[in-house]
Amino acid sequence: MWTYTPPLRDMQFVIEDVLGAPAAWRDMPDFAELDEQTARAVLEEAGKFAAGVLAPINGTGDLEGCHWQDGEVRTPSGYREAYQAFVEGGWAALSCDPQDGGQGLPALLNAAFNEMIAAANHGWTMYPGLLHGAYDCLRAHASPEIRQRYLAKIASGEWLATMNLTEPQAGSDLAPVRTKAEPAEDGSYRLIGSKIFISGGEHDLTDNIVHLVLARLPDAPAGTKGLSLFVAPKRLPDGSRNAIRCDGIEKKMGIKGSATCAISLDGATGWLVGEPHRGLASMFVMMNSARLHVAMQGIGHLETAQRNAHAYAHERVQGRGRPIAEHPAVRRILWSLRALVDGERVVAYWLAMLLDEAHHHPDAARRAKAEARVGLLTPVAKAFFTDNGHRGADEALQVWGGYGYVHEYGIEQCVRDSRIAMIYEGTNEIQAIDLLQRKVLDDGAATLHSLLDDLQAEAGQVMGQPELRPFCDALLAEIATARAATARLLEGRQADPQWPLRVADDYLRAIGFLLLAWAWLRQAQAALPQAGSAWHDEKLQSARFGLQWLLPEAAWRWQRVQSSGAALPAAGYAPAA
Amino acid sequence: MWTYTPPLRDMQFVIEDVLGAPAAWRDMPDFAELDEQTARAVLEEAGKFAAGVLAPINGTGDLEGCHWQDGEVRTPSGYREAYQAFVEGGWAALSCDPQDGGQGLPALLNAAFNEMIAAANHGWTMYPGLLHGAYDCLRAHASPEIRQRYLAKIASGEWLATMNLTEPQAGSDLAPVRTKAEPAEDGSYRLIGSKIFISGGEHDLTDNIVHLVLARLPDAPAGTKGLSLFVAPKRLPDGSRNAIRCDGIEKKMGIKGSATCAISLDGATGWLVGEPHRGLASMFVMMNSARLHVAMQGIGHLETAQRNAHAYAHERVQGRGRPIAEHPAVRRILWSLRALVDGERVVAYWLAMLLDEAHHHPDAARRAKAEARVGLLTPVAKAFFTDNGHRGADEALQVWGGYGYVHEYGIEQCVRDSRIAMIYEGTNEIQAIDLLQRKVLDDGAATLHSLLDDLQAEAGQVMGQPELRPFCDALLAEIATARAATARLLEGRQADPQWPLRVADDYLRAIGFLLLAWAWLRQAQAALPQAGSAWHDEKLQSARFGLQWLLPEAAWRWQRVQSSGAALPAAGYAPAA
Repeated sequence: MWTYTPPLRDMQFVIEDVLGAPAAWRDMPDFAELDEQTARAVLEEAGKFAAGVLAPINGTGDLEGCHWQDGEVRTPSGYREAYQAFVEGGWAALSCDPQDGGQGLPALLNAAFNEMIAAANHGWTMYPGLLHGAYDCLRAHASPEIRQRYLAKIASGEWLATMNLTEPQAGSDLAPVRTKAEPAEDGSYRLIGSKIFISGGEHDLTDNIVHLVLARLPDAPAGTKGLSLFVAPKRLPDGSRNAIRCDGIEKKMGIKGSATCAISLDGATGWLVGEPHRGLASMFVMMNSARLHVAMQGIGHLETAQRNAHAYAHERVQGRGRPIAEHPAVRRILWSLRALVDGERVVAYWLAMLLDEAHHHPDAARRAKAEARVGLLTPVAKAFFTDNGHRGADEALQVWGGYGYVHEYGIEQCVRDSRIAMIYEGTNEIQAIDLLQRKVLDDGAATLHSLLDDLQAEAGQVMGQPELRPFCDALLAEIATARAATARLLEGRQADPQWPLRVADDYLRAIGFLLLAWAWLRQAQAALPQAGSAWHDEKLQSARFGLQWLLPEAAWRWQRVQSSGAALPAAGYAPAA
Repeated sequence: MWTYTPPLRDMQFVIEDVLGAPAAWRDMPDFAELDEQTARAVLEEAGKFAAGVLAPINGTGDLEGCHWQDGEVRTPSGYREAYQAFVEGGWAALSCDPQDGGQGLPALLNAAFNEMIAAANHGWTMYPGLLHGAYDCLRAHASPEIRQRYLAKIASGEWLATMNLTEPQAGSDLAPVRTKAEPAEDGSYRLIGSKIFISGGEHDLTDNIVHLVLARLPDAPAGTKGLSLFVAPKRLPDGSRNAIRCDGIEKKMGIKGSATCAISLDGATGWLVGEPHRGLASMFVMMNSARLHVAMQGIGHLETAQRNAHAYAHERVQGRGRPIAEHPAVRRILWSLRALVDGERVVAYWLAMLLDEAHHHPDAARRAKAEARVGLLTPVAKAFFTDNGHRGADEALQVWGGYGYVHEYGIEQCVRDSRIAMIYEGTNEIQAIDLLQRKVLDDGAATLHSLLDDLQAEAGQVMGQPELRPFCDALLAEIATARAATARLLEGRQADPQWPLRVADDYLRAIGFLLLAWAWLRQAQAALPQAGSAWHDEKLQSARFGLQWLLPEAAWRWQRVQSSGAALPAAGYAPAA
C-alpha cells in the first residue's frame, strides 16, 4: 500500500555532493555553526516526523475530511495530535530567527522539510503552511507591539496563521477587494467584509488563529494600491472572540483534510501592519519563499508517486509471472518520473541556497545578485514543478491500472491533492507571465543572460570529460536557443505586445527544461567519481534518461515560443444558432 | 454553473457536411430508409435526454455515491428514474437489430448518443454501458435458447448486463483467471470464484442483471486459451436468486455514481456461451465497438469541459472589468480544447462509419477493408481521445482558478470521471502496443499504408485551393514522416525487438495527430463554402489553430519514436543503503 519513505540519501547527495551547500554555509555568519552532521540529523528527524506521524493519517484524513457546524471546524482524526507533535518537535521554528525562539536554519533545510511533509500529507501541511510567511511578514512590517504579541507564538507554532486575500470577485486580480477597515478610537480598526478560500481560516488545532487580512481604508485609492494589511486574531488579547466567523468550508477535489473556509469579518478588530495602502507590498515580502514552498509540494508529490509506483511495479505480477516493472511501457513511466524528480531537486535546492544567500550573505553584491536570480527562478520552480508533480502523479497512476483509480492504493489521492499547487500562490499561468514579462523582458534579459553565462561557463569547464560531454552539448544548445528565442521576443514584442502573453507557458516550460539539463549535468558530475556503486550508477542513468527522453520536449516548446505568426483567434465562439 | 449543452449543430456538421454520412447510408440496405431528418431528430431527442434527465443528477450523484449494505447496492437519487426514462425512450435499443426489438440505427448515431450521455453523466452511463456489448456477444455466440431468453430483454434495457472478467490477480493479463466452471447434470454449469471491478455488478435499477462471466472448465488448458464464457443471471429463470453476491463496492476517484463491485460466485448457475475455451474470442466480438464507446467518453468530457470553460471565461471578470476570456493564456486553453474536440469528432464519427460499413456494406471487399481500418484506428481513438479528454479537462480546470478545485463548479468532477477511461477496456499503454505491434508492424504496415494512400490522395485533390494548401502540406508531411518512422521500426525491430514497446505511446500519439491533421483539413474544406458566416468562420479558425498550435507536438513524438538509441535502463533502483 501507499507509504512514504523520506529520500534522505537523495537529499544528502544533492545538498552535499551536487551543490556543496555546507561550504556555502561556512561563508555566511548566520550559518557558520551548521555542518553536514547537523543538517543530516535535522533531515533524519524530519523524515521520521513525516513518515511516522503525518503519512499514517493521510489517507484517512482524505476520506474523513473536515466538518463544519455553526462556525466551528473539526479537523480529521489524528490531525490535532500530529500538530502537537509538530510544535513539540520545534518544526515550526526551523528557519525562524533565534531571537524569536527559532532555530535559524537555512531555507534550504526548510525546503527539504517542506518537501517531506507535503509528500507525506499535503492536506495536513496546509495548516502550518502559512506560518513562516506570516512570521516573515510581521517581522518585517509590524509595529514592535504587534511583533511582541505574535512573533514568538507564531515561531513556536502555538498559534497558527492565515492569509485573508481572496474575495468572491477578487482572486488572481486583487484590485476589486472590498473588505473595509474603519479606524477606531483606540488606534485599531474595524474590519468588515467577506473572504473566501481561506486555508485554515477556522480549525481545532490551536487556541488562537492569527489572520492577516487585506482591506481598504476609508481614504484608499482604488485598485491594488489601496490595499492595507491588518492583523486580526481569532481571540483578542483579552481572550474574547473577535468578530470573525467561519461561514462554511468548501467541498474540494483534494487536500480534504485542510479546511478551506469562507470567512465573515463583522466589524472584527484588527491592527494595521506596515504602511497604509502598502499591504500588497508587505505581503510580497514572503512571496518568493511561499512560492518555493509550493514548488516543494510539486516535488514531494512527484517523489512519492514515483517511489510508490516503483514499489508497486516490482510487486505486481502480470504476464508470465514477471513483475510489470519489466515492461518497457512501465519502465518508461518510472524512469521519466525518476529523472524529473532527481533533476528538480537539484534546481529547487539551489534556489533555496540562493534565497539563503540573498538574505544572509555578508557581501551586498552577492546578496543582490542572488536576489535577482531568486526572482527569476522562483516562478519557474513554482509552475514547472507543480505541473510536473500533478501530471507525473497522474502518469504514475497508470502503473496501478484499475487499482490506481481506487482510494486505498493512494495514488488517486496524490493526483487530486497535487492539483491545487498549480492554482494557489498565483496560478501557473500567472507565474509564466511573471517570468517572461517582468523577470526576463522588462529587465532586458540581463538577469537571464547573467545566469546563462554562469551555466555556460560551468559546461565549458567540464566538457573535456567524455562522460559529461553529451550533457554539456545539450545544455549549451539549450542556452543558445534560449538566448535566440529571448532576443526574438524582446524585439518582436515592440510590434506585437501580445506575443509574450501567448507563449509565456511554453517559454516557462522550456526554461524549466534548460535548468534540468544543467541539473542532470551536475548530477552526473557528482555521481561520476563513484561510478560502479549501484546507487551512483542509478543517478547516472537517471541523468542520461532525462537527457535522452525528456529534454527533447524543450525543442517543441521553443518552436511554439518562436512561431510568432500563430496568432490566437478572439475568445468568443459564435452562437450555435 | 456546470451545464451540458448538446453540440447538435457541431455533430450535424460532421455527420452531414464533413463526412457525408447520409450518402453512405444509402449504399447500405440496412440503413436505406434512414435520412438526414430522421438522424437529426434522433440526436435532438438524445440531447434532450442527456441534458434534461442525466445532467441534473451528475453532480449530486457524485456527492452521494453508491451505498452497499448486506450485498445490496443503492444507486444515487434520481438514477432509477433516469434509467426508466432511458428504457422508455428506447435508447437501449438504438443500434440493436429490429428482429430483437431494436431500432437498427447506425453505430455512428450510437456513437453520437454515447458522446452525449457520457458528457452529461459518465457515472450513470456505466450501467447501460455494457448493454450493447452483451447484446452483440450473445447474438453472435449464444445458443438459440439463451438468445431467446435474454436478447430482447437486453435490447429493450429491461435487464442490464455486466462483464465479469477481472480477478485480483488477473487484470490487463487475463491468463491467470481462476474462476471455475463445473458441469452440472442439466447442461448448465456451477461457477465458483471471485471477480473484481465489475461495473454495475449489483444495483437497484433493474430486477435482473445478466452477468457474462469468464471462467475455466475442468479440462481447460492454462492461459487465455482455456477461458470459456458463461451467462449467469442474478435471477434464474424460475425467479429465484442465483448464487452471485456483491461483497462490496470500491471507493473510487470518480464515476462515483457507478457501483464498481466485488462479486462472489458461490456455485452460481451459468450457461456456456459459444465454444469451450473460446470465451475470450467471443468477448472480442464487441471489443472494437466497446473501445469506440470509451473513445466517445473522452470526446464527451473534452466537449463539456471546453464548453463550460468557455462560458465561465466569458462571465468571470478580473482585471479592469474585462472577462478573463480576453486573456491570451485563457484563450490559448479554450482554443486548444476546441480545436482538439472538433478534430476528434471528425475522426471518431468516421471510425463509427467504418464500423457500420464493416458490418452492413453489401460489398464483401468493402467490408473487409473497413474492418481492417477499424482495427487500426480503434486503439488510436480509444487511447488518444481518452488521454486528451482527461488532460484537456485538467487543463480546462485552470480557467476557473481556485473555483475549479471546488466541487460545485463541476470541472473537478469532470477531471476525476474522465480519468477512468484511460484505464478500462485495455489501458492506453495496451492500446499503443496493440496499434504498433499488432495492427501496424505484424501486418507489414499494409493497412497503415493503404490508409495513408487514401489520405494522401485526398490532400492531392484539394491542395489547389489556396485556403486548404497549408492543411494539405501539413498532412502530407505527417504522412511522409509516418511512413519513414514505420519503415525504420519494421527494420529496426529485427535487431532490437523491444524498440516498438519502448516507443508505442509516442507512436500512437503521433498517429493521432496525423489523423487530426486530416480531420482539420476536412473541417476547413467543409466550412469554406460558407465562409463569412460566423459559425463557419469559427470552424475555420479552430482548424487553423489546431494546425498551428497543436500539430507541432507530433514532431516531438516522431523524434522520440525514431531515437532508437535511447534504450531504457532496467527497472530496478538500487536500495538506498
